[in-house]
Amino acid sequence: MDLKNKKVSIIGLGMMGGAFAHGLKKLNPESISAYDLNNEILEQALSDGVITFGTNDKNTLKEILKESDLVLICLYPLATIEFLKENFKNFKEGSIVSDISGIKLPIFQVLKDLNRDDIFYISGHPMAGSEKEGYGGATDKIFQNRNYILVPFKNTNQEKLQDFKELLKNLGFTNIVETTPKNHDSKIAYTSQLCHIIASALVDSVDDMTITDYEGGSYADLTRIAMINAPMWTEIFIENKDLLLEQIENFELSLDKIKNQIKDKRSDDLSNVLKDVRKKRVVMEVDRINKHHLED
Amino acid sequence: MDLKNKKVSIIGLGMMGGAFAHGLKKLNPESISAYDLNNEILEQALSDGVITFGTNDKNTLKEILKESDLVLICLYPLATIEFLKENFKNFKEGSIVSDISGIKLPIFQVLKDLNRDDIFYISGHPMAGSEKEGYGGATDKIFQNRNYILVPFKNTNQEKLQDFKELLKNLGFTNIVETTPKNHDSKIAYTSQLCHIIASALVDSVDDMTITDYEGGSYADLTRIAMINAPMWTEIFIENKDLLLEQIENFELSLDKIKNQIKDKRSDDLSNVLKDVRKKRVVMEVDRINKHHLED
Repeated sequence: MDLKNKKVSIIGLGMMGGAFAHGLKKLNPESISAYDLNNEILEQALSDGVITFGTNDKNTLKEILKESDLVLICLYPLATIEFLKENFKNFKEGSIVSDISGIKLPIFQVLKDLNRDDIFYISGHPMAGSEKEGYGGATDKIFQNRNYILVPFKNTNQEKLQDFKELLKNLGFTNIVETTPKNHDSKIAYTSQLCHIIASALVDSVDDMTITDYEGGSYADLTRIAMINAPMWTEIFIENKDLLLEQIENFELSLDKIKNQIKDKRSDDLSNVLKDVRKKRVVMEVDRINKHHLED
Repeated sequence: MDLKNKKVSIIGLGMMGGAFAHGLKKLNPESISAYDLNNEILEQALSDGVITFGTNDKNTLKEILKESDLVLICLYPLATIEFLKENFKNFKEGSIVSDISGIKLPIFQVLKDLNRDDIFYISGHPMAGSEKEGYGGATDKIFQNRNYILVPFKNTNQEKLQDFKELLKNLGFTNIVETTPKNHDSKIAYTSQLCHIIASALVDSVDDMTITDYEGGSYADLTRIAMINAPMWTEIFIENKDLLLEQIENFELSLDKIKNQIKDKRSDDLSNVLKDVRKKRVVMEVDRINKHHLED
Protein backbone atom coordinates (compact mmCIF):
# COMPACT_ATOMS: atom_id res chain seq x y z
CA MET A 1 0.00 0.00 0.00
CA ASP A 2 1.68 3.11 -1.24
CA LEU A 3 0.64 6.02 0.97
CA LYS A 4 1.75 8.67 -1.52
CA ASN A 5 -1.32 10.82 -2.34
CA LYS A 6 -3.25 9.10 0.48
CA LYS A 7 -4.85 10.93 3.35
CA VAL A 8 -4.54 9.24 6.71
CA SER A 9 -6.34 10.06 9.92
CA ILE A 10 -5.62 8.86 13.43
CA ILE A 11 -8.34 8.93 16.06
CA GLY A 12 -6.84 9.30 19.54
CA LEU A 13 -3.27 10.46 19.87
CA GLY A 14 -2.22 8.48 22.93
CA MET A 15 0.75 6.14 23.24
CA MET A 16 -0.49 3.89 20.42
CA GLY A 17 -1.98 6.57 18.17
CA GLY A 18 1.22 8.55 18.59
CA ALA A 19 3.32 5.51 17.71
CA PHE A 20 1.31 5.06 14.50
CA ALA A 21 1.74 8.75 13.68
CA HIS A 22 5.52 8.43 14.09
CA GLY A 23 5.59 5.33 11.90
CA LEU A 24 3.18 6.53 9.21
CA LYS A 25 5.03 9.81 8.81
CA LYS A 26 8.03 7.86 7.49
CA LEU A 27 5.83 6.38 4.76
CA ASN A 28 5.08 9.86 3.39
CA PRO A 29 1.31 10.03 3.08
CA GLU A 30 -0.23 13.20 1.63
CA SER A 31 -1.49 14.15 5.09
CA ILE A 32 -1.84 12.79 8.64
CA SER A 33 -4.76 14.30 10.51
CA ALA A 34 -5.35 13.55 14.15
CA TYR A 35 -8.43 13.83 16.32
CA ASP A 36 -7.89 14.05 20.07
CA LEU A 37 -9.74 15.77 22.91
CA ASN A 38 -6.48 17.22 24.21
CA ASN A 39 -5.39 20.29 22.28
CA GLU A 40 -1.95 20.51 23.89
CA ILE A 41 -1.07 17.08 22.57
CA LEU A 42 -2.23 18.01 19.08
CA GLU A 43 -0.05 21.10 19.18
CA GLN A 44 2.90 19.05 20.40
CA ALA A 45 2.44 16.51 17.60
CA LEU A 46 2.16 19.30 15.04
CA SER A 47 5.35 20.89 16.30
CA ASP A 48 7.04 17.44 16.29
CA GLY A 49 5.99 17.18 12.64
CA VAL A 50 4.34 13.78 13.11
CA ILE A 51 0.89 15.05 12.09
CA THR A 52 -0.07 17.64 9.49
CA PHE A 53 -3.38 18.66 11.07
CA GLY A 54 -5.05 18.24 14.45
CA THR A 55 -8.51 18.89 15.77
CA ASN A 56 -10.65 18.30 18.82
CA ASP A 57 -13.79 19.47 17.07
CA LYS A 58 -16.41 16.92 16.09
CA ASN A 59 -17.57 18.77 13.00
CA THR A 60 -14.04 19.17 11.70
CA LEU A 61 -13.51 15.47 12.41
CA LYS A 62 -16.49 14.68 10.19
CA GLU A 63 -14.90 16.63 7.33
CA ILE A 64 -11.58 14.86 7.83
CA LEU A 65 -13.16 11.41 7.80
CA LYS A 66 -14.97 12.16 4.53
CA GLU A 67 -11.58 12.65 2.87
CA SER A 68 -9.52 9.97 4.61
CA ASP A 69 -8.30 6.97 2.63
CA LEU A 70 -7.15 5.28 5.83
CA VAL A 71 -8.56 5.74 9.32
CA LEU A 72 -6.85 4.26 12.37
CA ILE A 73 -8.98 4.36 15.50
CA CYS A 74 -6.59 4.27 18.47
CA LEU A 75 -9.05 4.51 21.37
CA TYR A 76 -9.92 2.29 24.33
CA PRO A 77 -12.52 -0.39 23.47
CA LEU A 78 -15.65 1.37 24.75
CA ALA A 79 -14.62 4.68 23.21
CA THR A 80 -13.97 2.83 19.95
CA ILE A 81 -17.56 1.56 20.02
CA GLU A 82 -18.92 5.06 20.68
CA PHE A 83 -16.77 6.46 17.89
CA LEU A 84 -17.97 3.82 15.42
CA LYS A 85 -21.62 4.42 16.24
CA GLU A 86 -21.23 8.14 15.72
CA ASN A 87 -18.95 8.15 12.70
CA PHE A 88 -19.53 5.06 10.62
CA LYS A 89 -21.65 7.06 8.20
CA ASN A 90 -18.84 9.60 7.73
CA PHE A 91 -16.13 7.32 6.35
CA LYS A 92 -15.07 7.89 2.75
CA GLU A 93 -16.26 5.40 0.13
CA GLY A 94 -13.50 2.89 -0.59
CA SER A 95 -11.52 3.79 2.53
CA ILE A 96 -9.82 1.31 4.82
CA VAL A 97 -10.88 1.75 8.44
CA SER A 98 -9.22 -0.05 11.32
CA ASP A 99 -9.28 -0.01 15.11
CA ILE A 100 -6.74 -1.39 17.56
CA SER A 101 -9.11 -2.39 20.35
CA GLY A 102 -7.74 -5.12 22.62
CA ILE A 103 -11.09 -6.95 22.53
CA LYS A 104 -13.00 -7.71 19.36
CA LEU A 105 -16.36 -9.36 20.18
CA PRO A 106 -17.96 -6.12 21.47
CA ILE A 107 -16.63 -4.24 18.41
CA PHE A 108 -18.12 -6.78 16.02
CA GLN A 109 -21.38 -6.75 17.94
CA VAL A 110 -21.65 -3.09 16.97
CA LEU A 111 -20.24 -3.47 13.44
CA LYS A 112 -22.96 -5.88 12.37
CA ASP A 113 -25.54 -3.11 12.76
CA LEU A 114 -23.46 -0.53 10.93
CA ASN A 115 -23.45 -2.15 7.54
CA ARG A 116 -21.79 -0.25 4.76
CA ASP A 117 -20.65 -2.22 1.76
CA ASP A 118 -18.55 0.59 0.36
CA ILE A 119 -15.81 0.76 3.00
CA PHE A 120 -13.27 -1.84 4.09
CA TYR A 121 -13.23 -2.46 7.81
CA ILE A 122 -10.28 -4.42 9.13
CA SER A 123 -10.18 -4.60 12.89
CA GLY A 124 -6.67 -5.11 14.18
CA HIS A 125 -4.52 -5.55 17.25
CA PRO A 126 -0.85 -4.61 17.28
CA MET A 127 0.82 -6.91 19.81
CA ALA A 128 3.07 -4.12 20.97
CA GLY A 129 3.02 -1.76 23.89
CA SER A 130 4.97 0.24 26.39
CA GLU A 131 4.79 1.08 30.06
CA LYS A 132 4.83 4.74 29.02
CA GLU A 133 1.39 6.28 28.86
CA GLY A 134 0.16 8.96 26.48
CA TYR A 135 1.55 10.71 23.42
CA GLY A 136 4.75 11.70 25.26
CA GLY A 137 5.79 8.05 25.44
CA ALA A 138 4.92 7.28 21.83
CA THR A 139 7.48 5.73 19.51
CA ASP A 140 7.13 3.42 16.52
CA LYS A 141 10.11 1.43 17.78
CA ILE A 142 7.59 -0.69 19.71
CA PHE A 143 6.30 -2.08 16.37
CA GLN A 144 9.58 -3.67 15.33
CA ASN A 145 9.49 -7.49 15.12
CA ARG A 146 6.02 -7.82 16.58
CA ASN A 147 2.84 -9.71 15.77
CA TYR A 148 -0.25 -7.99 14.40
CA ILE A 149 -3.61 -9.74 14.62
CA LEU A 150 -6.19 -8.87 12.00
CA VAL A 151 -9.89 -9.52 12.34
CA PRO A 152 -11.37 -8.52 8.98
CA PHE A 153 -15.04 -7.58 8.78
CA LYS A 154 -17.06 -9.53 6.21
CA ASN A 155 -17.00 -6.89 3.46
CA THR A 156 -13.22 -6.60 3.27
CA ASN A 157 -11.77 -7.94 0.05
CA GLN A 158 -8.43 -9.70 -0.31
CA GLU A 159 -6.80 -6.87 -2.20
CA LYS A 160 -7.48 -4.33 0.55
CA LEU A 161 -6.39 -6.84 3.17
CA GLN A 162 -3.08 -7.32 1.35
CA ASP A 163 -2.65 -3.54 1.07
CA PHE A 164 -3.15 -3.16 4.80
CA LYS A 165 -0.79 -6.04 5.64
CA GLU A 166 1.89 -4.50 3.47
CA LEU A 167 1.46 -1.22 5.33
CA LEU A 168 1.84 -3.00 8.67
CA LYS A 169 5.01 -4.69 7.47
CA ASN A 170 6.35 -1.31 6.44
CA LEU A 171 5.68 -0.14 10.00
CA GLY A 172 7.88 -2.93 11.36
CA PHE A 173 5.48 -5.79 12.17
CA THR A 174 6.94 -9.12 11.08
CA ASN A 175 4.12 -11.62 11.59
CA ILE A 176 0.53 -10.87 10.69
CA VAL A 177 -2.23 -13.37 11.35
CA GLU A 178 -5.95 -13.29 10.55
CA THR A 179 -8.56 -14.68 12.87
CA THR A 180 -12.13 -14.37 14.15
CA PRO A 181 -13.30 -12.02 16.92
CA LYS A 182 -13.97 -14.93 19.29
CA ASN A 183 -10.61 -16.57 18.66
CA HIS A 184 -8.84 -13.24 19.08
CA ASP A 185 -10.50 -12.55 22.40
CA SER A 186 -9.78 -16.04 23.68
CA LYS A 187 -6.10 -16.11 22.65
CA ILE A 188 -5.46 -12.58 23.87
CA ALA A 189 -7.07 -13.39 27.21
CA TYR A 190 -4.13 -15.75 27.66
CA THR A 191 -1.16 -14.06 26.00
CA SER A 192 -1.90 -10.52 27.11
CA GLN A 193 -4.66 -10.04 29.67
CA LEU A 194 -3.68 -12.95 31.93
CA CYS A 195 -0.04 -11.79 31.78
CA HIS A 196 -1.04 -8.29 32.91
CA ILE A 197 -3.10 -9.76 35.74
CA ILE A 198 -0.27 -12.04 36.87
CA ALA A 199 2.24 -9.18 36.84
CA SER A 200 -0.18 -6.99 38.77
CA ALA A 201 -0.98 -9.68 41.35
CA LEU A 202 2.73 -10.35 41.80
CA VAL A 203 3.45 -6.69 42.60
CA ASP A 204 0.26 -6.42 44.67
CA SER A 205 1.40 -9.34 46.84
CA VAL A 206 4.56 -7.64 48.13
CA ASP A 207 4.75 -4.87 50.72
CA ASP A 208 8.51 -4.71 51.15
CA MET A 209 9.95 -2.07 48.83
CA THR A 210 13.58 -3.11 49.52
CA ILE A 211 12.75 -6.18 47.48
CA THR A 212 14.59 -4.77 44.45
CA ASP A 213 17.85 -5.48 46.32
CA TYR A 214 17.05 -9.16 46.02
CA GLU A 215 15.79 -9.38 42.45
CA GLY A 216 17.32 -10.89 39.39
CA GLY A 217 16.38 -9.95 35.85
CA SER A 218 13.38 -12.27 35.94
CA TYR A 219 11.44 -10.26 38.52
CA ALA A 220 11.88 -7.05 36.52
CA ASP A 221 10.78 -8.90 33.36
CA LEU A 222 7.76 -10.48 35.00
CA THR A 223 6.52 -7.23 36.52
CA ARG A 224 7.33 -4.65 33.82
CA ILE A 225 3.70 -4.72 32.61
CA ALA A 226 2.50 -4.07 36.16
CA MET A 227 3.29 -0.47 35.17
CA ILE A 228 -0.20 -0.80 33.84
CA ASN A 229 -2.62 1.68 32.34
CA ALA A 230 -5.32 1.13 34.98
CA PRO A 231 -8.40 2.62 33.26
CA MET A 232 -7.74 0.88 29.94
CA TRP A 233 -7.03 -2.55 31.37
CA THR A 234 -9.93 -2.37 33.81
CA GLU A 235 -12.17 -1.87 30.79
CA ILE A 236 -10.54 -4.68 28.81
CA PHE A 237 -10.59 -7.18 31.69
CA ILE A 238 -14.25 -6.58 32.46
CA GLU A 239 -15.40 -6.49 28.82
CA ASN A 240 -13.65 -9.82 28.17
CA LYS A 241 -14.68 -11.26 31.52
CA ASP A 242 -15.87 -14.73 30.54
CA LEU A 243 -12.98 -15.71 28.26
CA LEU A 244 -10.51 -14.16 30.69
CA LEU A 245 -11.86 -15.99 33.74
CA GLU A 246 -11.39 -19.26 31.83
CA GLN A 247 -7.72 -18.44 31.30
CA ILE A 248 -7.19 -17.31 34.90
CA GLU A 249 -8.71 -20.56 36.12
CA ASN A 250 -6.58 -22.67 33.77
CA PHE A 251 -3.52 -20.91 35.11
CA GLU A 252 -4.66 -21.44 38.70
CA LEU A 253 -4.98 -25.17 38.02
CA SER A 254 -1.38 -25.34 36.78
CA LEU A 255 -0.16 -23.22 39.68
CA ASP A 256 -2.03 -25.41 42.12
CA LYS A 257 -0.58 -28.57 40.61
CA ILE A 258 2.97 -27.28 41.02
CA LYS A 259 2.23 -25.96 44.53
CA ASN A 260 0.97 -29.34 45.64
CA GLN A 261 3.97 -31.15 44.17
CA ILE A 262 6.19 -28.87 46.24
CA LYS A 263 4.03 -29.25 49.36
CA ASP A 264 4.11 -33.05 49.06
CA LYS A 265 7.79 -33.07 48.07
CA ARG A 266 6.99 -35.03 44.93
CA SER A 267 10.33 -34.31 43.26
CA ASP A 268 9.90 -36.63 40.30
CA ASP A 269 6.47 -35.29 39.33
CA LEU A 270 7.64 -31.71 39.76
CA SER A 271 10.80 -32.27 37.75
CA ASN A 272 8.76 -33.89 34.95
CA VAL A 273 6.37 -30.95 34.76
CA LEU A 274 9.29 -28.52 34.65
CA LYS A 275 11.04 -30.56 31.96
CA ASP A 276 7.89 -30.51 29.81
CA VAL A 277 7.49 -26.78 30.41
CA ARG A 278 11.07 -26.14 29.34
CA LYS A 279 10.62 -28.17 26.15
CA LYS A 280 7.40 -26.34 25.29
CA ARG A 281 8.91 -22.93 25.92
CA VAL A 282 12.04 -23.75 23.89
CA VAL A 283 9.81 -24.69 20.93
CA MET A 284 8.02 -21.34 21.34
CA GLU A 285 11.38 -19.55 21.36
CA VAL A 286 12.49 -21.20 18.12
CA ASP A 287 9.10 -20.38 16.61
CA ARG A 288 9.45 -16.74 17.67
CA ILE A 289 12.98 -16.44 16.29
CA ASN A 290 11.85 -17.86 12.93
CA LYS A 291 8.68 -15.79 12.68
CA HIS A 292 10.34 -12.51 13.48
CA HIS A 293 13.73 -13.24 11.89
CA LEU A 294 15.44 -12.63 15.23
CA GLU A 295 18.92 -13.64 16.18
CA ASP A 296 19.30 -16.34 18.80
CA MET B 1 40.87 -7.54 46.08
CA ASP B 2 43.76 -7.80 43.69
CA LEU B 3 43.84 -11.28 42.19
CA LYS B 4 47.43 -10.96 41.01
CA ASN B 5 49.43 -13.80 42.66
CA LYS B 6 46.19 -15.34 43.91
CA LYS B 7 45.08 -18.86 43.13
CA VAL B 8 41.41 -19.27 42.39
CA SER B 9 39.41 -22.46 42.14
CA ILE B 10 35.93 -23.01 40.79
CA ILE B 11 33.94 -26.05 41.83
CA GLY B 12 31.47 -27.05 39.14
CA LEU B 13 31.90 -25.64 35.66
CA GLY B 14 28.28 -25.29 34.60
CA MET B 15 26.55 -22.16 33.34
CA MET B 16 27.35 -20.20 36.53
CA GLY B 17 30.80 -21.64 37.24
CA GLY B 18 31.68 -21.04 33.60
CA ALA B 19 30.45 -17.44 33.82
CA PHE B 20 32.68 -16.87 36.86
CA ALA B 21 35.64 -18.42 35.04
CA HIS B 22 35.10 -16.06 32.09
CA GLY B 23 34.86 -13.06 34.42
CA LEU B 24 37.71 -13.99 36.76
CA LYS B 25 40.08 -14.63 33.86
CA LYS B 26 39.87 -10.93 33.00
CA LEU B 27 41.07 -10.07 36.51
CA ASN B 28 44.34 -11.99 35.90
CA PRO B 29 44.70 -14.31 38.88
CA GLU B 30 47.83 -16.46 39.07
CA SER B 31 45.71 -19.54 38.24
CA ILE B 32 42.11 -20.67 37.80
CA SER B 33 41.61 -24.32 38.59
CA ALA B 34 38.31 -26.04 37.99
CA TYR B 35 36.81 -29.20 39.40
CA ASP B 36 34.03 -30.84 37.41
CA LEU B 37 32.91 -34.42 36.88
CA ASN B 38 32.78 -33.87 33.12
CA ASN B 39 36.22 -34.10 31.52
CA GLU B 40 35.08 -32.85 28.11
CA ILE B 41 33.95 -29.59 29.64
CA LEU B 42 37.25 -29.16 31.45
CA GLU B 43 39.10 -29.69 28.18
CA GLN B 44 36.85 -27.22 26.41
CA ALA B 45 37.45 -24.60 29.14
CA LEU B 46 41.20 -25.20 28.98
CA SER B 47 41.19 -24.76 25.21
CA ASP B 48 39.03 -21.62 25.61
CA GLY B 49 41.72 -20.35 27.98
CA VAL B 50 39.23 -19.54 30.76
CA ILE B 51 40.83 -22.00 33.20
CA THR B 52 44.46 -22.90 33.68
CA PHE B 53 43.90 -26.37 35.14
CA GLY B 54 41.02 -28.80 35.34
CA THR B 55 40.43 -32.03 37.18
CA ASN B 56 37.67 -34.51 37.94
CA ASP B 57 39.79 -36.35 40.46
CA LYS B 58 38.97 -35.99 44.14
CA ASN B 59 42.55 -36.33 45.34
CA THR B 60 43.78 -33.70 42.90
CA LEU B 61 40.91 -31.50 44.05
CA LYS B 62 42.17 -31.80 47.62
CA GLU B 63 45.61 -30.59 46.53
CA ILE B 64 44.08 -27.66 44.65
CA LEU B 65 41.97 -26.55 47.60
CA LYS B 66 44.98 -26.56 49.90
CA GLU B 67 46.58 -23.92 47.67
CA SER B 68 43.52 -21.83 46.72
CA ASP B 69 43.17 -18.29 48.03
CA LEU B 70 39.63 -18.09 46.71
CA VAL B 71 37.21 -20.96 46.22
CA LEU B 72 33.89 -20.49 44.43
CA ILE B 73 31.50 -23.42 44.81
CA CYS B 74 29.13 -23.31 41.84
CA LEU B 75 27.05 -26.42 42.48
CA TYR B 76 23.35 -27.07 43.09
CA PRO B 77 22.36 -26.68 46.77
CA LEU B 78 22.47 -30.34 47.84
CA ALA B 79 25.74 -30.94 46.00
CA THR B 80 27.13 -27.81 47.70
CA ILE B 81 26.31 -29.34 51.07
CA GLU B 82 27.97 -32.63 50.15
CA PHE B 83 31.02 -30.77 48.89
CA LEU B 84 31.30 -28.71 52.08
CA LYS B 85 31.05 -31.78 54.31
CA GLU B 86 33.77 -33.53 52.36
CA ASN B 87 36.12 -30.63 51.77
CA PHE B 88 35.84 -28.11 54.57
CA LYS B 89 38.98 -29.48 56.15
CA ASN B 90 40.89 -29.01 52.91
CA PHE B 91 40.54 -25.25 52.47
CA LYS B 92 43.71 -23.19 52.78
CA GLU B 93 44.19 -21.15 55.95
CA GLY B 94 43.17 -17.55 55.33
CA SER B 95 41.27 -18.34 52.15
CA ILE B 96 37.92 -16.90 51.14
CA VAL B 97 35.39 -19.58 50.34
CA SER B 98 32.00 -18.87 48.80
CA ASP B 99 29.08 -20.77 47.34
CA ILE B 100 26.30 -19.55 45.08
CA SER B 101 23.52 -21.81 46.33
CA GLY B 102 20.04 -20.40 45.72
CA ILE B 103 18.99 -21.36 49.26
CA LYS B 104 20.98 -20.57 52.36
CA LEU B 105 19.32 -22.08 55.46
CA PRO B 106 20.36 -25.67 54.60
CA ILE B 107 23.91 -24.47 53.84
CA PHE B 108 24.18 -22.71 57.20
CA GLN B 109 22.73 -25.72 58.95
CA VAL B 110 25.78 -27.62 57.73
CA LEU B 111 28.28 -24.78 58.19
CA LYS B 112 27.62 -24.52 61.91
CA ASP B 113 29.06 -28.00 62.41
CA LEU B 114 32.09 -27.35 60.22
CA ASN B 115 33.72 -24.71 62.35
CA ARG B 116 37.07 -23.49 61.22
CA ASP B 117 38.19 -20.11 62.48
CA ASP B 118 41.04 -19.80 60.00
CA ILE B 119 39.05 -19.46 56.78
CA PHE B 120 36.55 -16.83 55.67
CA TYR B 121 33.25 -18.22 54.49
CA ILE B 122 30.98 -15.81 52.63
CA SER B 123 27.93 -17.48 51.17
CA GLY B 124 26.59 -15.59 48.19
CA HIS B 125 23.93 -15.48 45.55
CA PRO B 126 24.46 -13.75 42.20
CA MET B 127 21.04 -12.55 41.04
CA ALA B 128 21.87 -13.38 37.49
CA GLY B 129 21.09 -16.28 35.22
CA SER B 130 20.37 -17.47 31.75
CA GLU B 131 18.05 -19.91 30.04
CA LYS B 132 21.15 -21.55 28.60
CA GLU B 133 22.27 -24.59 30.58
CA GLY B 134 25.82 -25.81 31.12
CA TYR B 135 29.28 -24.49 30.39
CA GLY B 136 28.47 -23.98 26.70
CA GLY B 137 26.02 -21.21 27.62
CA ALA B 138 28.34 -19.53 30.11
CA THR B 139 29.16 -15.84 29.78
CA ASP B 140 30.05 -13.21 32.35
CA LYS B 141 27.79 -10.74 30.51
CA ILE B 142 24.98 -11.99 32.76
CA PHE B 143 26.72 -10.33 35.76
CA GLN B 144 26.52 -6.79 34.41
CA ASN B 145 24.29 -4.44 36.43
CA ARG B 146 22.96 -7.14 38.72
CA ASN B 147 22.41 -7.61 42.44
CA TYR B 148 24.58 -9.92 44.54
CA ILE B 149 23.33 -11.08 47.90
CA LEU B 150 25.93 -11.96 50.52
CA VAL B 151 25.28 -14.06 53.59
CA PRO B 152 28.53 -13.95 55.56
CA PHE B 153 29.30 -16.73 58.02
CA LYS B 154 30.12 -15.60 61.56
CA ASN B 155 33.89 -15.81 61.28
CA THR B 156 34.20 -13.50 58.28
CA ASN B 157 35.88 -10.21 59.05
CA GLN B 158 35.03 -6.86 57.48
CA GLU B 159 38.26 -6.62 55.54
CA LYS B 160 37.72 -9.93 53.75
CA LEU B 161 34.11 -9.01 53.13
CA GLN B 162 35.21 -5.73 51.51
CA ASP B 163 37.76 -7.62 49.42
CA PHE B 164 35.10 -9.97 48.18
CA LYS B 165 32.65 -7.16 47.43
CA GLU B 166 35.28 -5.35 45.43
CA LEU B 167 35.90 -8.51 43.42
CA LEU B 168 32.16 -8.82 42.69
CA LYS B 169 32.01 -5.21 41.53
CA ASN B 170 34.93 -5.92 39.22
CA LEU B 171 32.91 -8.78 37.79
CA GLY B 172 30.09 -6.38 36.92
CA PHE B 173 27.70 -6.55 39.88
CA THR B 174 26.42 -3.09 40.80
CA ASN B 175 24.46 -3.60 44.01
CA ILE B 176 25.67 -5.88 46.79
CA VAL B 177 23.60 -6.44 49.93
CA GLU B 178 24.29 -8.42 53.08
CA THR B 179 21.63 -10.37 54.89
CA THR B 180 20.85 -13.44 57.00
CA PRO B 181 20.16 -16.95 55.67
CA LYS B 182 16.50 -16.77 56.69
CA ASN B 183 15.93 -13.37 55.13
CA HIS B 184 17.70 -14.47 51.96
CA ASP B 185 15.54 -17.55 51.61
CA SER B 186 12.37 -15.62 52.27
CA LYS B 187 13.10 -12.76 49.85
CA ILE B 188 14.35 -15.07 47.14
CA ALA B 189 11.25 -17.23 47.48
CA TYR B 190 9.40 -14.16 46.19
CA THR B 191 11.74 -12.52 43.68
CA SER B 192 13.10 -15.65 42.10
CA GLN B 193 11.42 -18.93 43.01
CA LEU B 194 7.83 -17.67 42.80
CA CYS B 195 8.65 -16.03 39.45
CA HIS B 196 9.98 -19.31 38.07
CA ILE B 197 6.86 -21.12 39.29
CA ILE B 198 4.52 -18.51 37.78
CA ALA B 199 6.33 -18.64 34.43
CA SER B 200 6.23 -22.44 34.47
CA ALA B 201 2.53 -22.58 35.42
CA LEU B 202 1.74 -20.07 32.68
CA VAL B 203 3.41 -22.22 30.01
CA ASP B 204 1.99 -25.40 31.55
CA SER B 205 -1.54 -24.01 31.26
CA VAL B 206 -1.50 -23.69 27.45
CA ASP B 207 -1.77 -26.52 24.93
CA ASP B 208 -2.02 -24.49 21.76
CA MET B 209 1.42 -24.01 20.26
CA THR B 210 0.21 -21.46 17.67
CA ILE B 211 -0.13 -19.11 20.62
CA THR B 212 3.10 -17.33 19.69
CA ASP B 213 1.19 -15.76 16.76
CA TYR B 214 -0.89 -13.89 19.32
CA GLU B 215 1.75 -12.79 21.80
CA GLY B 216 3.18 -9.40 22.54
CA GLY B 217 6.52 -8.83 24.20
CA SER B 218 5.03 -9.35 27.64
CA TYR B 219 4.29 -13.04 27.14
CA ALA B 220 7.84 -13.72 26.01
CA ASP B 221 9.16 -11.73 29.00
CA LEU B 222 6.91 -13.50 31.50
CA THR B 223 7.78 -16.98 30.26
CA ARG B 224 11.49 -16.71 29.41
CA ILE B 225 12.41 -18.35 32.75
CA ALA B 226 10.07 -21.23 31.96
CA MET B 227 13.09 -22.42 29.97
CA ILE B 228 13.93 -23.76 33.37
CA ASN B 229 16.68 -26.05 34.62
CA ALA B 230 14.30 -28.70 35.94
CA PRO B 231 16.59 -30.70 38.29
CA MET B 232 18.08 -27.60 39.91
CA TRP B 233 14.82 -25.78 40.49
CA THR B 234 13.05 -28.91 41.71
CA GLU B 235 15.73 -29.15 44.38
CA ILE B 236 15.50 -25.45 45.26
CA PHE B 237 11.69 -25.39 45.43
CA ILE B 238 11.49 -28.43 47.67
CA GLU B 239 14.40 -27.42 49.93
CA ASN B 240 12.81 -23.98 50.46
CA LYS B 241 9.30 -25.43 50.66
CA ASP B 242 7.88 -23.59 53.69
CA LEU B 243 9.03 -20.07 52.82
CA LEU B 244 8.09 -20.64 49.18
CA LEU B 245 4.58 -21.88 49.95
CA GLU B 246 4.01 -18.69 51.94
CA GLN B 247 4.91 -16.60 48.89
CA ILE B 248 2.82 -18.72 46.51
CA GLU B 249 -0.16 -18.33 48.82
CA ASN B 250 0.32 -14.56 49.11
CA PHE B 251 0.36 -14.35 45.35
CA GLU B 252 -2.75 -16.51 45.10
CA LEU B 253 -4.56 -14.12 47.43
CA SER B 254 -3.73 -11.15 45.21
CA LEU B 255 -4.68 -13.08 42.09
CA ASP B 256 -7.94 -14.16 43.67
CA LYS B 257 -8.75 -10.60 44.69
CA ILE B 258 -8.28 -9.35 41.12
CA LYS B 259 -10.18 -12.33 39.68
CA ASN B 260 -13.18 -11.64 41.89
CA GLN B 261 -13.18 -7.95 41.03
CA ILE B 262 -13.38 -8.94 37.36
CA LYS B 263 -16.02 -11.60 38.01
CA ASP B 264 -18.19 -9.12 39.94
CA LYS B 265 -17.46 -6.30 37.45
CA ARG B 266 -16.23 -4.07 40.28
CA SER B 267 -14.51 -1.59 37.96
CA ASP B 268 -13.65 1.01 40.60
CA ASP B 269 -12.04 -1.48 42.99
CA LEU B 270 -10.14 -3.12 40.16
CA SER B 271 -8.94 0.18 38.76
CA ASN B 272 -7.76 1.27 42.22
CA VAL B 273 -5.75 -1.90 42.72
CA LEU B 274 -4.15 -1.49 39.29
CA LYS B 275 -3.35 2.16 39.98
CA ASP B 276 -1.62 1.20 43.25
CA VAL B 277 0.26 -1.58 41.52
CA ARG B 278 1.46 0.80 38.81
CA LYS B 279 2.67 3.31 41.42
CA LYS B 280 4.51 0.62 43.36
CA ARG B 281 6.16 -0.79 40.26
CA VAL B 282 7.20 2.66 39.02
CA VAL B 283 8.93 3.27 42.38
CA MET B 284 10.74 -0.06 41.96
CA GLU B 285 11.82 0.96 38.46
CA VAL B 286 13.31 4.24 39.66
CA ASP B 287 15.01 2.36 42.48
CA ARG B 288 16.47 -0.14 40.01
CA ILE B 289 17.71 2.58 37.67
CA ASN B 290 19.44 4.37 40.56
CA LYS B 291 20.96 1.26 42.10
CA HIS B 292 22.40 -0.07 38.89
CA HIS B 293 23.15 3.28 37.24
CA LEU B 294 20.92 2.36 34.31
CA GLU B 295 19.51 4.67 31.71
CA ASP B 296 15.79 5.21 31.71
